[in-house]
Amino acid sequence: MQDTIIYIDADNRLNLQNQIRQKLVDGILNGSFPPGMRLPSSRKLSQQLNVARNTVVAAYQQLVSDGYLVSRNRSGIFVSQEMLEARVGHSSDSSPAAQAESKAWARRVKAIPSLWHEEHGQPNWRHYPFPFIDGRFDATLFPITEWREANRLSLGVADVGDWSTGSGDADDPMLIEEIRTKILTRRGIQAGSDEILVTMGTQNSLYIISQLLADESTRAVMEEPGNYEMRNLLHLRGANVVAQEVDDQGLVVDENLQGASIVYVTPSHQIPTAVAMSLERRQALIQAAADDDFLIVEDDYECETNYMDHPLPALRSMDVAGRVIYIASFSNALAPGARLGFIVANPGFIRRARQLRRKILNHPPLNNQRTAAYFLSLGHYDALMMRLGRVFRERRMALRDALNNMRGIPLEISPEVGGTTYWVRTPRDFDVGNLTREAEKHGILIEPVEQYYAVAENAENCFRMGVTSLPHGKIRPGVEQLIKLLRDLVRGQVEQLETSSGSWLIGDELQRTMAGATILYREVYGAPCTIEHLPDGTMQGRLGFANEDRDTGRWRVEGEQLFRKWDRWVYGEETAYYIVIDGDKIKYFNADKQIVDSAFIRLAGD
Amino acid sequence: MQDTIIYIDADNRLNLQNQIRQKLVDGILNGSFPPGMRLPSSRKLSQQLNVARNTVVAAYQQLVSDGYLVSRNRSGIFVSQEMLEARVGHSSDSSPAAQAESKAWARRVKAIPSLWHEEHGQPNWRHYPFPFIDGRFDATLFPITEWREANRLSLGVADVGDWSTGSGDADDPMLIEEIRTKILTRRGIQAGSDEILVTMGTQNSLYIISQLLADESTRAVMEEPGNYEMRNLLHLRGANVVAQEVDDQGLVVDENLQGASIVYVTPSHQIPTAVAMSLERRQALIQAAADDDFLIVEDDYECETNYMDHPLPALRSMDVAGRVIYIASFSNALAPGARLGFIVANPGFIRRARQLRRKILNHPPLNNQRTAAYFLSLGHYDALMMRLGRVFRERRMALRDALNNMRGIPLEISPEVGGTTYWVRTPRDFDVGNLTREAEKHGILIEPVEQYYAVAENAENCFRMGVTSLPHGKIRPGVEQLIKLLRDLVRGQVEQLETSSGSWLIGDELQRTMAGATILYREVYGAPCTIEHLPDGTMQGRLGFANEDRDTGRWRVEGEQLFRKWDRWVYGEETAYYIVIDGDKIKYFNADKQIVDSAFIRLAGD
Repeated sequence: MQDTIIYIDADNRLNLQNQIRQKLVDGILNGSFPPGMRLPSSRKLSQQLNVARNTVVAAYQQLVSDGYLVSRNRSGIFVSQEMLEARVGHSSDSSPAAQAESKAWARRVKAIPSLWHEEHGQPNWRHYPFPFIDGRFDATLFPITEWREANRLSLGVADVGDWSTGSGDADDPMLIEEIRTKILTRRGIQAGSDEILVTMGTQNSLYIISQLLADESTRAVMEEPGNYEMRNLLHLRGANVVAQEVDDQGLVVDENLQGASIVYVTPSHQIPTAVAMSLERRQALIQAAADDDFLIVEDDYECETNYMDHPLPALRSMDVAGRVIYIASFSNALAPGARLGFIVANPGFIRRARQLRRKILNHPPLNNQRTAAYFLSLGHYDALMMRLGRVFRERRMALRDALNNMRGIPLEISPEVGGTTYWVRTPRDFDVGNLTREAEKHGILIEPVEQYYAVAENAENCFRMGVTSLPHGKIRPGVEQLIKLLRDLVRGQVEQLETSSGSWLIGDELQRTMAGATILYREVYGAPCTIEHLPDGTMQGRLGFANEDRDTGRWRVEGEQLFRKWDRWVYGEETAYYIVIDGDKIKYFNADKQIVDSAFIRLAGD
Repeated sequence: MQDTIIYIDADNRLNLQNQIRQKLVDGILNGSFPPGMRLPSSRKLSQQLNVARNTVVAAYQQLVSDGYLVSRNRSGIFVSQEMLEARVGHSSDSSPAAQAESKAWARRVKAIPSLWHEEHGQPNWRHYPFPFIDGRFDATLFPITEWREANRLSLGVADVGDWSTGSGDADDPMLIEEIRTKILTRRGIQAGSDEILVTMGTQNSLYIISQLLADESTRAVMEEPGNYEMRNLLHLRGANVVAQEVDDQGLVVDENLQGASIVYVTPSHQIPTAVAMSLERRQALIQAAADDDFLIVEDDYECETNYMDHPLPALRSMDVAGRVIYIASFSNALAPGARLGFIVANPGFIRRARQLRRKILNHPPLNNQRTAAYFLSLGHYDALMMRLGRVFRERRMALRDALNNMRGIPLEISPEVGGTTYWVRTPRDFDVGNLTREAEKHGILIEPVEQYYAVAENAENCFRMGVTSLPHGKIRPGVEQLIKLLRDLVRGQVEQLETSSGSWLIGDELQRTMAGATILYREVYGAPCTIEHLPDGTMQGRLGFANEDRDTGRWRVEGEQLFRKWDRWVYGEETAYYIVIDGDKIKYFNADKQIVDSAFIRLAGD
């Protein structure tokens, strides 16, 4: 009896027929099944593999019609000669050229220092259990059913006729129309079809714009902190990049903008602070562009996740002088795989950009353009935006709660400005770079904000935590591990129970002190909180500027520690603290006898 | 009774449910159906549209779950408030910015003369009935069933998890493996996975390479004639481009290559002559690269359509010094829509190219990478290559026959060198540019070869005709129309019957002369042909250097003309000529009394 020539692999994603096909093709092309070799009969192979004979017959028939196999009447199925003749050799995993010591190529590569030196070797976030980084979307967000439907429609015969043959330098007219009527109107932008160019996403848009608008003679203003991708592209062109302050209304518009050729801004969701530029500031910027004669590059980064408010209209929609070049990408939930974005600008500029795009890559894939067009046309895009808004709101709240409840060291987070991230401020002399590296070793990715600053000294001692790539259920465990790590790192640097100033209270004395005491403090995100410890062992909590969040709980003293348990707050879990009273200040210490929080205390008699 | 709010469109490609969905979404987003508007009941709408009620119910339900509509119990279905709140305005087809007269942007665009001036405004070939241009593939060649299958597999849940989240700057490992084992082995190339970078096709590969390897200090050698896309990219970088002769063995390797930094070649199928570089020449080029210290950029353009011979191994496969940078794209039949190609070079070079690619566009779409990977993995690619070879062979033969049989003016076509085109040589003073423009007006696209020459004077008076985008059945009608146009254009410029030297024979005299005469001439593609006119009214034809093609036919004289009809040749159709005998030369004139051919004649008595 003949040996089995192929095996069925239970983990393989292909169905049986395709798997048989794939394995036979592999064998033929790698030479294991040489031309002229006789294959086992379909009956025999189906017995060996324990699959239906029809499955084997169908796989054989396909391969015969494709020319891999030939069927000779009554004598069987053979590997064909013809297919192999078109091939020159076999595969091996290393080339002689690559092994050559000569580095002939290396001397020819042009030196582009800002290209070679700025890469930070970003870790692949998908391999980490807790990627608290912004702008990457986990797979649960991908609208798989809707994308499949749009994709299936784009493979209709008439549609394939439209896109399979290439287009010179044109985009899919159906997609342009959908962008015009379904996306740009969300941003208040009116645009004709000759004002839109499809790109391979935001990076590609920025590349094209920086090639067209910047060179050594260019003074380019950017937000500080700001998008380092754009800063690097401008440096690549040799431009003089000016760092301009961002405040709580967005880019500061003042005399520093004078003399600029271009000003790059991210008004709807500032990178990286998430500040939305105020309407007044937008008007001032448009006016300054006219007065000082510069162009504005408006990067409408993640406008879809800026869910906190009703969005303000885009700068492009306020532009009557053709000075704004607007770029956006399809939602990150849709685009990372498919990579699609677009530029909106005056027709003449779009014409130039199209010519350059043709040199770079001809045009973005038309099959993906058509799929995106159907996705928009069926209304899936707006539905996706609503869903993302909901999901991110929930996740960001979960992050806030976890950071608030898991305090390990004194932390502070940015007030609510929208977006999907929090900036976490650490004590002044804390080494954020070290924390980032240590966290990565523990499977946690956080983002130091330093890279967003052109001038390193401007950077606050902060890191950024985002939730776009982290499903709800992983946020609390991730924060718990991060806080544990933080505690270990600051051990010895923060106040210890044994050496604390004030009185360490235990037992009855602690019980007497807390009964009737009121605690006043602030949450990590700045909201005031009042806690009353009633003598009967219950607690009343009021949180927020208008006491909008209330909870009740129980407190008790057992041995040396104060135990607290809220009905809802702190996940309804009991926490224990050592307590020190220092004047009108109460200090909380954790089980490791490190300080985790302090507050103002008003005793019952006061 | 309420008016119908939407209409069903019989031509729409969507199914009824999706069409209803699409039209409702359009109405909601463009404001025709304002928030709070009550929609007709599903019963009413289904009656109005004459579709099943379930179809309307399903469309409504989907839109409710997406948030476009809200259902209020017992009172009906309403347009939701929420969806519109996220939007700023409505659509219009022109922007105020675009209408602004200010050309603020124009003064900021950097002058890149070689980019702006070299565009010829290529017509979109798909709109022309007879696009005889090379390298565009008509939709009948697209492997729609196989692509759909591969596409469907790429949308499996595990696969979507792999590609939907983006990849930083990595390519799909599955595709890299398939390229390595299924494509590169066809070309004799061994490569590790770190020697391969996926690109957006050949244009994108050339762009990346020209950015990395060329600047003002670069002496770059190119074939003359050669690929104008690469020449333009080198000019864009300010390189000194040297035009080097191509002979029937490919690029001439001589002392002109000395001092070059890079040499760009298309060895498997020279652009545009289709010459395959001989093995000796390949070895000489590799040796020269080592001796003169230059790099070779090997563009394996359309190696798959070079079907005439067994292919020679790629230069990269002969390279032991790491001096060859190899680029190829997936077949044009697969890639124009999806746009995928790749670069093979030493790992260090690939690393640099990957960094630059990240700046330009991050990475090529991963969904298309995965689809292509499945396409290769199932063996569809090799099967497609075989099918294309077959189809192009047939089409090119049809083009040759049509050009041979439809002679309108003396023409000559290039000998067989492989590829999918013929070069058509016209009389010396014929205006090919004018012909190209006139042909376009008649729906026929031909390609003047001038643009391939760096030095215009090197260009022969030729145009190129290709068949990759023209199905078999359209080739003869296209050539017929082109020849008709040619005849009109040369009217008055070629020999006329009335003014011809020699004797115009008619009637009995013509009958007597032709009986027993033997005609010796050459086909347009250079093969000798002998025709014997036997006295009994039959003809014997022998064609080719070894008389490999024979046919029989009948001839007769009627009135002033000689009538000929072959059994197979000239499509088995009868043709009529006026005949002039001038010494030992026979001249054929068409119905317009213009000369179309001449030959050597040996009379019966000789």
